[in-house]
Amino acid sequence: MSAQRIDIQPVKGTRDFYPEDMRRRQWLFEHWRQISRRFGFEEYDACVLENEALYIRKAGDEITGQLYNFEDKGGRRVALRPEMTPTLARMILAKGASLPQPLRWYTIAQCFRYERAQRGRKREHYQWNMDIVGLAHVAAEVELMSAQAAFLEAVGLQPESIAFKVSHRGILQHHLAGLGIDGERFAAVCVIVDKHDKIGPEATATLLAEQGVDAATATAILQLLSVRGIDALAETVSDDNPGLADLRELLNLAEAAGIADRMTIDCSVVRGLSYYTGTVWECFDASGEVPRAVAGGGRYDALLQHLGGEATPMVGFGFGDVVILDLLEGRGLLPADDKGIDEVVYPLSADEFAAATRLAAARRADGQRVCVDYSQRRFKHVIARAEADGASRLLILGAAEVAKGIYKERSLSTREEREQPLPS
Amino acid sequence: MSAQRIDIQPVKGTRDFYPEDMRRRQWLFEHWRQISRRFGFEEYDACVLENEALYIRKAGDEITGQLYNFEDKGGRRVALRPEMTPTLARMILAKGASLPQPLRWYTIAQCFRYERAQRGRKREHYQWNMDIVGLAHVAAEVELMSAQAAFLEAVGLQPESIAFKVSHRGILQHHLAGLGIDGERFAAVCVIVDKHDKIGPEATATLLAEQGVDAATATAILQLLSVRGIDALAETVSDDNPGLADLRELLNLAEAAGIADRMTIDCSVVRGLSYYTGTVWECFDASGEVPRAVAGGGRYDALLQHLGGEATPMVGFGFGDVVILDLLEGRGLLPADDKGIDEVVYPLSADEFAAATRLAAARRADGQRVCVDYSQRRFKHVIARAEADGASRLLILGAAEVAKGIYKERSLSTREEREQPLPS
Repeated sequence: MSAQRIDIQPVKGTRDFYPEDMRRRQWLFEHWRQISRRFGFEEYDACVLENEALYIRKAGDEITGQLYNFEDKGGRRVALRPEMTPTLARMILAKGASLPQPLRWYTIAQCFRYERAQRGRKREHYQWNMDIVGLAHVAAEVELMSAQAAFLEAVGLQPESIAFKVSHRGILQHHLAGLGIDGERFAAVCVIVDKHDKIGPEATATLLAEQGVDAATATAILQLLSVRGIDALAETVSDDNPGLADLRELLNLAEAAGIADRMTIDCSVVRGLSYYTGTVWECFDASGEVPRAVAGGGRYDALLQHLGGEATPMVGFGFGDVVILDLLEGRGLLPADDKGIDEVVYPLSADEFAAATRLAAARRADGQRVCVDYSQRRFKHVIARAEADGASRLLILGAAEVAKGIYKERSLSTREEREQPLPS
Repeated sequence: MSAQRIDIQPVKGTRDFYPEDMRRRQWLFEHWRQISRRFGFEEYDACVLENEALYIRKAGDEITGQLYNFEDKGGRRVALRPEMTPTLARMILAKGASLPQPLRWYTIAQCFRYERAQRGRKREHYQWNMDIVGLAHVAAEVELMSAQAAFLEAVGLQPESIAFKVSHRGILQHHLAGLGIDGERFAAVCVIVDKHDKIGPEATATLLAEQGVDAATATAILQLLSVRGIDALAETVSDDNPGLADLRELLNLAEAAGIADRMTIDCSVVRGLSYYTGTVWECFDASGEVPRAVAGGGRYDALLQHLGGEATPMVGFGFGDVVILDLLEGRGLLPADDKGIDEVVYPLSADEFAAATRLAAARRADGQRVCVDYSQRRFKHVIARAEADGASRLLILGAAEVAKGIYKERSLSTREEREQPLPS
């Protein structure tokens, strides 16, 4: 090899996980896994590399425009997956009837997007997904929101600090159809409504006008978006709006699940993805300090059919690692850093390496998490490193100890030392 | 969205992990993590997408020819990493002196290679890596081999069923220099020696002749490759061969670690990667049933320098998921499949959904892993599914039970039922 000077940065927009970062990440993932298991969900995964065709949808999907896609050496159009749901759909299609429904599956998947440089936005993140396949009842939605709520409580967020904003594509669709907006125009209006939260009612009205929506209709749409709560919604939309019964039942079960107190019905929530068909929801920090959604989900009963299979009820959520870790860090809810080392074996010189190796093997077999400090550095350096690593005990081996068949066990908290027999 | 028919296969050469496969994978990963922690190693990770320049090395590295590389939309030459070591080196270079050495780091990383279609070879796999950075003594090698051995024992492989073949690049280099082969020719001979195990001595001699190695020298090389054991090696190479003392000390410490019984000194082990500088080893199924190495490792003290940093002692191993899972499956050592579901709540009709949701929330808060079967199917279907899912108990809720404020808890093994109070 010849010497070179390499770029020591990770690829633009991607993250390195040094041990300290990795411990935070694994702490988060372990909570996600525990909650998923508590709800009886099974974990699945697939390769981060996917067929590009899975993501090519109609206009209006931000995700299609932000694909991290390329052509491989074999001429295949492939992409680093931007989200996991199309992969889930593909896997279910591939197995067909051999998978007993309903399925309750979860995954923790790295997802990519390629977008022009923008401050604070990464090109990859990890996303916890839970999906229920084959259950048309909103009980599925409540299971998923309950899991999200259980996770948020497990990591120390009080119920009142989280707000679920819940809407229903069917309510919007039925209401807009009553106003004469359907088909392609409905999709276009959804794209606009999705921006409403960021751009406000005036800009929304302007965009609606550009789509040929007349002023009275635009006012009616904006009025729907400003409605909060199921009773006000029932007064606004017609009694035969099919999503209304769904949302009533959802709130009923949410009450039973103990999470109704943090729910708001809010039709301004649309979520970007074009495949949603029923309920959609987003989960926010109730204080409003974090402007981006912590998580979101929705029902997409038509996706399998659009990919060439049978129509199948599906509902799921995505929960990214970035926003929640920022939020938890801001609240001081991340755990203290712990390297997980119990004992450090310290041979004073290379003459004691064999005894140190034997001692470490015996202690590890005994269930201890053990490092050997083979550095042959002076006591103060070794003890400083052992303390920095968070070890509880230093096991000291000099020539005298080995000759006596013992080692000195020093407590790093009390500094007390005692002699212990060396294993043979 | 318009209907389409998608390719339901994963990208060529990549794997889907359905829940059953995922449980096997996570069982393996959990063992890897437990062993790493027992040895006091810290986990790290980086993005699977890396700068291509990290992998462009001299000829002779199979890995450079098999890069899954491409140009991204920003004109960057990037690759799906083929191995983790260059990433580790990059991360260490980026932090410099702020990382206290020695480092003991591990990772479980997905790695990619792009090769022409070949039966049974995937284009991605997961690889457990442990590396020690900043320790020049072979104690580091023995730590790593001990961890591999501890893992193999933890998954049920007896010590006698595993063989570590150990060699040293320095021995080969010093010996060949004595025969007049050095520099570029040494690298070329290494590439040939690396194939010796597969192609045999005659073909090796032919390839050596093609490199201009005379017959007497080729015979001397082949003689070295046929030597087994440290004593025979000491008789073959000169006393001042610097690798000899390393291997003697390695065997001494391996004895202390309790793993010397499964070690063989064998200079035919070279390992493909051009960056190795000292010890190299491979770990094999001792029965010979599995022809491919189960794992391999080596010392690469010059890599950081070649990437533009300070020369730093580094040693590490890679342990892939594919060969070991095949081997364990063949020996019947994989665990029985268990979905991890304790209880299934069964509301007989939608009228009992709220009570079922409440009951599930209470049982989950109590630490149980609970599904609710909202299917409203008949008893025999629900019980068959609960049994297939491996649940222990069915919690039955009909109108009569809810009216009485109870549920029926049915043991799926004894079929006994008893009434329990519904949580309020």
